[in-house]
Amino acid sequence: MAIAELSEQRLPIIGITIGDAAGIGPEISLKAVTDDDVRKPCIPVLIGDLAFLKKTSAELKLDIELVSLSDSVGSNGRNIQVFDTANLPENIRIGHDDAVTGKASAEFINAAVELCTDGKIDAISTAPISKKAFSLGGYHYPGHTELLAHLTDTRDFAMSFFAGPLRVILVSTHVSLRKAIDLVTTAKLIEVIRFTDVQLARLLGRHIKIAIAGLNPHASEQGMFGDEEAHQIVPAVRTCREEYGINVSGPYSPDTIFLRGHSGEFDAIVACYHDQATIAVKSLSFGSAVNVTLGLPLIRTSVDHGTAYDIAGQGVAEASSMKAAIKLAAELVAIKRAKTRH
Amino acid sequence: MAIAELSEQRLPIIGITIGDAAGIGPEISLKAVTDDDVRKPCIPVLIGDLAFLKKTSAELKLDIELVSLSDSVGSNGRNIQVFDTANLPENIRIGHDDAVTGKASAEFINAAVELCTDGKIDAISTAPISKKAFSLGGYHYPGHTELLAHLTDTRDFAMSFFAGPLRVILVSTHVSLRKAIDLVTTAKLIEVIRFTDVQLARLLGRHIKIAIAGLNPHASEQGMFGDEEAHQIVPAVRTCREEYGINVSGPYSPDTIFLRGHSGEFDAIVACYHDQATIAVKSLSFGSAVNVTLGLPLIRTSVDHGTAYDIAGQGVAEASSMKAAIKLAAELVAIKRAKTRH
Repeated sequence: MAIAELSEQRLPIIGITIGDAAGIGPEISLKAVTDDDVRKPCIPVLIGDLAFLKKTSAELKLDIELVSLSDSVGSNGRNIQVFDTANLPENIRIGHDDAVTGKASAEFINAAVELCTDGKIDAISTAPISKKAFSLGGYHYPGHTELLAHLTDTRDFAMSFFAGPLRVILVSTHVSLRKAIDLVTTAKLIEVIRFTDVQLARLLGRHIKIAIAGLNPHASEQGMFGDEEAHQIVPAVRTCREEYGINVSGPYSPDTIFLRGHSGEFDAIVACYHDQATIAVKSLSFGSAVNVTLGLPLIRTSVDHGTAYDIAGQGVAEASSMKAAIKLAAELVAIKRAKTRH
Repeated sequence: MAIAELSEQRLPIIGITIGDAAGIGPEISLKAVTDDDVRKPCIPVLIGDLAFLKKTSAELKLDIELVSLSDSVGSNGRNIQVFDTANLPENIRIGHDDAVTGKASAEFINAAVELCTDGKIDAISTAPISKKAFSLGGYHYPGHTELLAHLTDTRDFAMSFFAGPLRVILVSTHVSLRKAIDLVTTAKLIEVIRFTDVQLARLLGRHIKIAIAGLNPHASEQGMFGDEEAHQIVPAVRTCREEYGINVSGPYSPDTIFLRGHSGEFDAIVACYHDQATIAVKSLSFGSAVNVTLGLPLIRTSVDHGTAYDIAGQGVAEASSMKAAIKLAAELVAIKRAKTRH
């Protein structure tokens, strides 16, 4: 039996970076890995400070034993393996940005990428970090994704959200709404649609059907309010269909296209600006949306929310998005394996 | 027993304009008034062409009898009373804009306002019209609301959406997204917040708690992307609180504030642009959102969707929003009566 076949027989190993320790990341990571629904399709491995996680687990009264990662990953009993980064002090200020927790949160990601590159884990799911703490800790990246892109030498990447059959790719992310409108150009849209077509087809292991949302209310109703549909979006869709043979259509009215995506009518929706995507995804997903970075050479999923400093350390954080992120990572690994086999 | 008390004992009479006859309006109006859930809290009266409605009802195989409105409204059996405008030809082109159906749809509204002003009905619920057909028929209004404002001599009015506890008021409606951003000014926001406070408190019969959404992603994260929060929204909220004593807060991150409104944390959310509101409302309401015009001297609710020409005449249209619009109208009449009593 070849090594490749052997490795297919075990469950996907998902490395979970616990995020900023001053936020809800460690709590939701621990809650997620103790959920049987999460442990059934994968072997979760926490990537963080073992001592801190043990303390947090005790505070949450979780029925698990945290053990340091041995070379032979494979146990899926009540033991949860932890890749111990041993980089947090005994006392940290919960609910506050700090250089120590910020630096540690970046180091978890460094470790995860290394483990993934070495084949020790199959995918990465990340708990939320704080951009400000990142920066205080000496990591000057706008977020997780940019650090991951840097560590994996990735030039082209995009943020997407998965919520069941609804998958949304964003033309722009953290820019002002005015700036976002300026970014809705034919050239940029062609780039995003082509990128979506290639990357999502690769991730899902099949051809995909894409829809693009309009920018203006009712997609401008034939130019009655706004001309970006006619001048930017329509030409981009035409070029993608005719020159690149991509199955893309639109622009559609922004206030109904995401519902159609959620009902499975399309494999992916391209959103013209951040909130178009996030309002729809958060409203439709009931807290179980997952952030997926497209374009990376590794599978990475993430929660769709922040560190929630206001409720950190209280044991009340909802782990639904974290659970969904880990399960989706396992699913994407399974698709990748199936594709490699054929 | 005084006349006022007598009139309180009967159910609210809701006049339902059937909308553009080439669209799904007549179908959803008929489906709605045959629903026991709708008929329990009110007496529905259809406002439209009786012959056309009889034909449509027969096609839909509905178990009702449509009768011309007598002077003594009150029956709530299987008979549905129709205020017969007798203004549609025998054959109309389903699914197409036409002067005849457009003109008729405006006449239904004229009739409804007259019936309401005369005290023959207590509120109006409107099925969808076509702006283009309106215009072909000689009615040059951007939509329903503007015609209603004209007919009732109303200068200040605003579109809002109700979806259970979620109520959203829009700063602007059918303008391009670029133009909508320009409209987010301190002066305009103060006007909308004050208007919301007065009108919604009147409609709900109690003091209300308002939240305002930011304009930019994450409400700009302290000015990291966009300055409208700091320069326009924050000063407007401060003025409304300090000078006018309004219970308003924000700006909040647009991608979570509507969920908070939906869970009942606020009585109303002010949305900075059309799609911010409509994407959230349509995603959270499962097709039962209702459009309510604030500022009119009469109670008017409406469906949150269009004529749906593509499925008109097929008997497959979903009446959930129409039903919700009629039920909400009945509820608002009941609130008004209770307030008048005290």
